[in-house]
Amino acid sequence: MKSLVLDSGKLYIRDKDVPTTVGDDDVEIKIHTVGICGSDVHYYKHGRIGPFVVKEPMILGHEASGIITKVGKNVKHLAVGDRVCMEPGIPNLSSIQSKSGFYNLDPEVRFWATPPIDGCLRESVVHPAAFTFKLPDHVSFTEGAMVEPLAIGMQSATKAQIKPGDIALVMGAGPIGVMTALSALAGGCAEVIICDVVDDKLSIAAQYQGIHTVNSKTTNLVDVVKEFTDGNGVDVLFECSGSPNAIAQLTDYVAPNGTVVLVGMPISPTPIDIVSAQAKEITFKTIFRYVNMYPKTIRLLASGKINLKPLISAVYKFPQAVEAFDRAASGNPQDVKIIIEME
Amino acid sequence: MKSLVLDSGKLYIRDKDVPTTVGDDDVEIKIHTVGICGSDVHYYKHGRIGPFVVKEPMILGHEASGIITKVGKNVKHLAVGDRVCMEPGIPNLSSIQSKSGFYNLDPEVRFWATPPIDGCLRESVVHPAAFTFKLPDHVSFTEGAMVEPLAIGMQSATKAQIKPGDIALVMGAGPIGVMTALSALAGGCAEVIICDVVDDKLSIAAQYQGIHTVNSKTTNLVDVVKEFTDGNGVDVLFECSGSPNAIAQLTDYVAPNGTVVLVGMPISPTPIDIVSAQAKEITFKTIFRYVNMYPKTIRLLASGKINLKPLISAVYKFPQAVEAFDRAASGNPQDVKIIIEME
Amino acid sequence: MKSLVLDSGKLYIRDKDVPTTVGDDDVEIKIHTVGICGSDVHYYKHGRIGPFVVKEPMILGHEASGIITKVGKNVKHLAVGDRVCMEPGIPNLSSIQSKSGFYNLDPEVRFWATPPIDGCLRESVVHPAAFTFKLPDHVSFTEGAMVEPLAIGMQSATKAQIKPGDIALVMGAGPIGVMTALSALAGGCAEVIICDVVDDKLSIAAQYQGIHTVNSKTTNLVDVVKEFTDGNGVDVLFECSGSPNAIAQLTDYVAPNGTVVLVGMPISPTPIDIVSAQAKEITFKTIFRYVNMYPKTIRLLASGKINLKPLISAVYKFPQAVEAFDRAASGNPQDVKIIIEME
Amino acid sequence: MKSLVLDSGKLYIRDKDVPTTVGDDDVEIKIHTVGICGSDVHYYKHGRIGPFVVKEPMILGHEASGIITKVGKNVKHLAVGDRVCMEPGIPNLSSIQSKSGFYNLDPEVRFWATPPIDGCLRESVVHPAAFTFKLPDHVSFTEGAMVEPLAIGMQSATKAQIKPGDIALVMGAGPIGVMTALSALAGGCAEVIICDVVDDKLSIAAQYQGIHTVNSKTTNLVDVVKEFTDGNGVDVLFECSGSPNAIAQLTDYVAPNGTVVLVGMPISPTPIDIVSAQAKEITFKTIFRYVNMYPKTIRLLASGKINLKPLISAVYKFPQAVEAFDRAASGNPQDVKIIIEME
Repeated sequence: MKSLVLDSGKLYIRDKDVPTTVGDDDVEIKIHTVGICGSDVHYYKHGRIGPFVVKEPMILGHEASGIITKVGKNVKHLAVGDRVCMEPGIPNLSSIQSKSGFYNLDPEVRFWATPPIDGCLRESVVHPAAFTFKLPDHVSFTEGAMVEPLAIGMQSATKAQIKPGDIALVMGAGPIGVMTALSALAGGCAEVIICDVVDDKLSIAAQYQGIHTVNSKTTNLVDVVKEFTDGNGVDVLFECSGSPNAIAQLTDYVAPNGTVVLVGMPISPTPIDIVSAQAKEITFKTIFRYVNMYPKTIRLLASGKINLKPLISAVYKFPQAVEAFDRAASGNPQDVKIIIEME
Repeated sequence: MKSLVLDSGKLYIRDKDVPTTVGDDDVEIKIHTVGICGSDVHYYKHGRIGPFVVKEPMILGHEASGIITKVGKNVKHLAVGDRVCMEPGIPNLSSIQSKSGFYNLDPEVRFWATPPIDGCLRESVVHPAAFTFKLPDHVSFTEGAMVEPLAIGMQSATKAQIKPGDIALVMGAGPIGVMTALSALAGGCAEVIICDVVDDKLSIAAQYQGIHTVNSKTTNLVDVVKEFTDGNGVDVLFECSGSPNAIAQLTDYVAPNGTVVLVGMPISPTPIDIVSAQAKEITFKTIFRYVNMYPKTIRLLASGKINLKPLISAVYKFPQAVEAFDRAASGNPQDVKIIIEME
Repeated sequence: MKSLVLDSGKLYIRDKDVPTTVGDDDVEIKIHTVGICGSDVHYYKHGRIGPFVVKEPMILGHEASGIITKVGKNVKHLAVGDRVCMEPGIPNLSSIQSKSGFYNLDPEVRFWATPPIDGCLRESVVHPAAFTFKLPDHVSFTEGAMVEPLAIGMQSATKAQIKPGDIALVMGAGPIGVMTALSALAGGCAEVIICDVVDDKLSIAAQYQGIHTVNSKTTNLVDVVKEFTDGNGVDVLFECSGSPNAIAQLTDYVAPNGTVVLVGMPISPTPIDIVSAQAKEITFKTIFRYVNMYPKTIRLLASGKINLKPLISAVYKFPQAVEAFDRAASGNPQDVKIIIEME
Repeated sequence: MKSLVLDSGKLYIRDKDVPTTVGDDDVEIKIHTVGICGSDVHYYKHGRIGPFVVKEPMILGHEASGIITKVGKNVKHLAVGDRVCMEPGIPNLSSIQSKSGFYNLDPEVRFWATPPIDGCLRESVVHPAAFTFKLPDHVSFTEGAMVEPLAIGMQSATKAQIKPGDIALVMGAGPIGVMTALSALAGGCAEVIICDVVDDKLSIAAQYQGIHTVNSKTTNLVDVVKEFTDGNGVDVLFECSGSPNAIAQLTDYVAPNGTVVLVGMPISPTPIDIVSAQAKEITFKTIFRYVNMYPKTIRLLASGKINLKPLISAVYKFPQAVEAFDRAASGNPQDVKIIIEME
């Protein structure tokens, strides 16, 4: 099957054998659109992410939408021709974690484009129907592909247990930071402050009503937070930068009894000011991908409460997929999401 | 002090003695705007609500905004000239309930216009600064007065623990139903369905994007819910009608593991289908007024996420206050909120 | 296979064909001990429970322990010879409910001895390994069989979100009431009050330290609750009687912000005093069987924090199984749990 | 009034002027018993704790019980002669934090023996009735004084949201570690593992059934945790050591979706392995003293579910108070709690 294959640090469009048997609980999906994620780019540039090393040729891509072409005999909620998007992780549903409602934490989960599992930048995939979701008519294939990164923002906003009218601070205005800000705003915040040190990133977030951008290099963030919160601090802080400097300061911005969600992934263990956190009884939540987030994410796109269109930076056709990856790898701060269409 | 006094079932604008000493933790507020609530009308028409009986002349009104005219010596967050709105209930802050974070449940709470406590339809009030809240510049006095009923919707939406992208059903499209729907939508719901049997009420709610109106007399509500929720049922149901018929059916509309918030107050104990609720492990929350809701409610008004303007049905000046009450008492289904301005 | 079969209202020990193929994720268990549940007796006496009607011969029993005799090839945590107990419900793990962590609410769940599914009063069963749990050495087969009803108490105590030092009231001292009281006590309550109108039932509960029995026919329950709670009401009330009279009064016993867990199943929709509940912002939880409760239940038996031995009323051998059912059907109030050993 | 005064690093029993006016909401208490806390000793030895510096002579002591000698006119729940214990922190009940249910986080809180506020090692105190709690007959004055440190363990166990049958690990077997273990066990855990590197400390904890002691210097803690939890990790980890080494490793011991409560106070910001925590979606809670914990703590002492007697290391009379402090300052690892009786 025609695929985008990472082999010894280089990308090739070439044929690769992949499983094609459609089980009773599976569907086959012709891939339509795939978004490029930072992790795809990281495997391309570095060949590994932590313990996950690309040792054999591997198909990239895990943010995808497409059209159902076959359905297994037990499948009831999907039909041939349905426009869909897919969760890229396939857990063991019998595991303790899955039975408890957090299948994302199942240690046996098989996740697209995490070695040695092939990704979805190929003509078609066979996937469990339970992790395949119908797109409403007015949600595009591109938005469908972007449900995956948005689901991370949604996981963050959901675990934060936002209360209506809360004020949130998002640290880091990369793609996940912006999608977290959008999720927090749709999820009940009255206002969201987002900070970064790169103006080009902030300019994308600044297009949204209700999101206030702050360059924390040139503006005193504590003052901004005080102004927005009557001196009390934010109810929820989403740490999406992974920066030790940001993490060192975060207790300064949070209200007593507030919540911090640690989304960014620092390279090494990172100092946290525990005593300052205790003085405010701050709670720290952590997230790992997402669980049961696709239906609610799709609903917020369908209702118009979340608009991803300003985040689509460029659309490439599959024959130009390597070019698309090279652009993504160049790290232009104004590029949020680069999209590949299969035909 | 010039006041609107309910005396033996009749309303009079007349002088009444009220306390005017400003304690160290108090402020004095010149009243600017007061909204008429259903409970004010109920005392006017019936002289009592359950165990609360109007035995002595009592000033009506508990939804109010105004301007600070004096501040006690301990008060730091307010100054003379500030535009404010006020929580009408004054609890004993030393009670077990208050110390535990639910001062609304303090049995000793003194609440405006709940006999024998005088309300706020008068020239000025002395009030604890802790229950007086500054209005941002672009929140009007009328909106400030309407924070009180909106806070009930906010209490409901907050206790529901809405998750981003939930779908809610509101039963009953009276003022509290509509304000609950607005709170749920601002508080994270992707869509809100509201039902009633009176089209005139639904037409007000229908003006809002994201709120879907259903006349449950002429349309099959179960079918509508199924369509909006892929057959699963709503995540949250707000029962705002107080109708035994509605309450008898509510388990039909709710998803497994869903939440019902009982907001409406039925006249007598009301049958609930417990076994059906158990089969879905439905949780029922109940609310009593609101607690710590004013700051977040004001924020959502200030940010524009909640717009109350379509709910302002008429504005009267204080000399026409009795006329305003008579209109409110006439029960026009298109009247949501009738406002009295003191000057 | 030799089984206890309910056929046209009569019980027979006779051979019945049952599936014996052990799938890759399954184990085969030689049944050792089975407890008799009220639902087994109800099917025996009435042939149905609500919509579930016994139309074909059906094996009874769903509270079981035994010894592993075969394991499927994917099974890692169990081995031949292991002493185990089994959850009697087998859900579809791909359903929305199962993925969300409440597989007990999956509408497709297949539950032993709920028509038309055969129960476990037979020589052996094939069961998913994911719902089969190893017993520690010092937990007996009888205790293993009783994990099932105890898990209902545990589900109630878990959903109640007991805080350390809470005081609970359990209404109804039948088997589920007593097991709920034991779960609440082990789960963090300082004291548990249990009430009933039958002294013989209360005498069983009275054997436990920390459980206080009240005959609510002869003693004023409100007074007892006041005495135990400094007049504040109980933090958690477990309604295990299913009695409309008990349900009508329950708001009287609960503290402001308290929780009621509705465990008992009234025959028809039952009046609840919603306005009284609102004045205290009482939350009502409901439970349906249990989810993810077996491991924690077994731990509490193993640690000695829960002692079920006083609840074992009689032990019969399988050839006397019909006699055992007839005793259970006789409804002796001092019988809590009647046990059948297969050999 | 005769007091134990810390003056320029030395302790004196001498007279000191203290306020004696009993306000309407206050009570006067004749002090009977005071426990010595590590913070008292720290002020004695170092003259400061972080930003809190002893600049003027200050009475030490904040763990106290006594007998009511006067009651203010608004006080209803207490009478002269009542045996009581007292919460040592007096918040501003009008603050945002207090109104929200976490008065412990009020930045204006006045706390006994935290400079410049005098402590309770004196003949009597005047205290708000709202923070004074009656002792049941069979709870001794010594136990009453120990409610204060135990309330910290209770705050930890309460914030951990223990589910019945959980397994907890407590890191650090000092007084707070042991009291946290007792609270966790009473609060619903099936078993509690406690680790330390000092055997003398562990030997105290080892006296309790259900608490398992591990010397983490000589035993592999990961192996112990695996054995107790079927390889899954503990549900709750209480970090009571404040040791950076312990904090660096803690994600190894926790189950997916588990909770860590940070109780110990490290001297400086401390590295946490955020990425490991994310892979398990671990939640970190922090605690600051306690809020609304006294009534539930007293209940668990009264019911016998928590037994503090093994933790009472020595009892001194007030004239020997300086000797008692010198013993406490000597840091004998077998001393858990040293008590001073006023007469």
